[in-house]
Amino acid sequence: MQQKIKITIEYDGTNFAGWQSQKNARSVQDVIESALKKLFGDDIRCYGGGRTDSGVHALGQTAHFIPTKNIPLSNIVSGINSYLPDDVAIISAEDVPKDFDARRSAVQRWYRYYIYNKKTRPVLNRNYITHIPYKLNMNEISKALDLLKGEHDFIAFRSVGCTAKRTILTLEEAGIHQEEDFLIFDFKCRSFLYNMVRIIVGLLIEIGRGKIPKSVILDMFNLKSRTVNIPVASPTGLILMSILYPSDFTKKKIK
Amino acid sequence: MQQKIKITIEYDGTNFAGWQSQKNARSVQDVIESALKKLFGDDIRCYGGGRTDSGVHALGQTAHFIPTKNIPLSNIVSGINSYLPDDVAIISAEDVPKDFDARRSAVQRWYRYYIYNKKTRPVLNRNYITHIPYKLNMNEISKALDLLKGEHDFIAFRSVGCTAKRTILTLEEAGIHQEEDFLIFDFKCRSFLYNMVRIIVGLLIEIGRGKIPKSVILDMFNLKSRTVNIPVASPTGLILMSILYPSDFTKKKIK
Repeated sequence: MQQKIKITIEYDGTNFAGWQSQKNARSVQDVIESALKKLFGDDIRCYGGGRTDSGVHALGQTAHFIPTKNIPLSNIVSGINSYLPDDVAIISAEDVPKDFDARRSAVQRWYRYYIYNKKTRPVLNRNYITHIPYKLNMNEISKALDLLKGEHDFIAFRSVGCTAKRTILTLEEAGIHQEEDFLIFDFKCRSFLYNMVRIIVGLLIEIGRGKIPKSVILDMFNLKSRTVNIPVASPTGLILMSILYPSDFTKKKIK
Repeated sequence: MQQKIKITIEYDGTNFAGWQSQKNARSVQDVIESALKKLFGDDIRCYGGGRTDSGVHALGQTAHFIPTKNIPLSNIVSGINSYLPDDVAIISAEDVPKDFDARRSAVQRWYRYYIYNKKTRPVLNRNYITHIPYKLNMNEISKALDLLKGEHDFIAFRSVGCTAKRTILTLEEAGIHQEEDFLIFDFKCRSFLYNMVRIIVGLLIEIGRGKIPKSVILDMFNLKSRTVNIPVASPTGLILMSILYPSDFTKKKIK
């Protein structure tokens, strides 16, 4: 009997009120749990690896659940997918040991943020990018990213309602690169605080426009609070790319 | 007084019944003409450079119209855009001479076709790609593209309802390249027959799957008719990238 199954999930966040189940709103978790019920014939709770907000997308969200019947992994993928709407799909399923937890076992989360940096508004792919019509100083943004990298107390980089106890985090990657009219940010960290990526991107846009000096980052680390008003960047440009787990879980995934 | 204005247009074809105005259906032309009416206060007819079918997208559609008032070009762009829904936008506007015609003056059209070649169905960007879950033989497809390139009678590569008189065309470019899970086709020609790109891509997919030999292309050129059943590829993966005009029109665009 399979003990626990990990699934990797892709979704278009446009028409979802986020990952997490909530009353009177369409959540990815509810849609997947409803598909699990159809496939297994039982109520099965599905636990996500990362919470994404309304409008945020995922190419590599993870979740785990305890199956109530033995179904081959490949049939689990096709079976769940056959009950899902076209804005969610299961990419893969893996057997994992009983002690695996999609949220707690994770060692790294990778978020990517897409900015469309052109004067005219985007049309194609408009749901997957954030439009910034202003010219941005890439050099200043790069220097600001260097200040953010590494171990800091990110308590000033979260929104009200964040329940995380640990706010000292090591931002392992904080980079930017350009592809034609797109500016692409990559952030990698064991865990992120509530709205942390969108607050960082919102601040970086203001720094790039010359509205806020990058020294504000150091102030926020030192004072542990925001000294300037920072607009939280739109969820549309944000994609949860992947969630990594220790290699002993990964090894089990191969069989 | 401005004589004629050329506009370049981007649109998401998903919720349009194509470029051309038609009864009881939402067309890009109608949506633009309705914006022109709001901006100029008059009924203005807008003539497109390329006809795109229902579901086909454009990054560089062109059109011309005769303005009834003198409005600066930059105000024309922002003005039309302010009256357009979020799935259409004007990218640029240019003064062109009286004899310019968006359709007849064109010397080259560039269509791009995106195939998502992975087993699992796509979620993000699903409206802008065509999903082909089968393994495709890239070598056979490349050889087939070489057969298509150059001057041929493409009469067997059009759908019923095509009104073009000239069917001998020079396909200037017919290429494919791969980017991660995507196969991207590029086709450049002075003009295309009705459904020609989608018939070509439909045939290339069958050739790539090994279902149809590439020699069918030569049969179709010689016999001027289809000898096998070719599924017309989905409109979702097709994008009208640009329409080129002679340099004397282009020169006038700079001022």
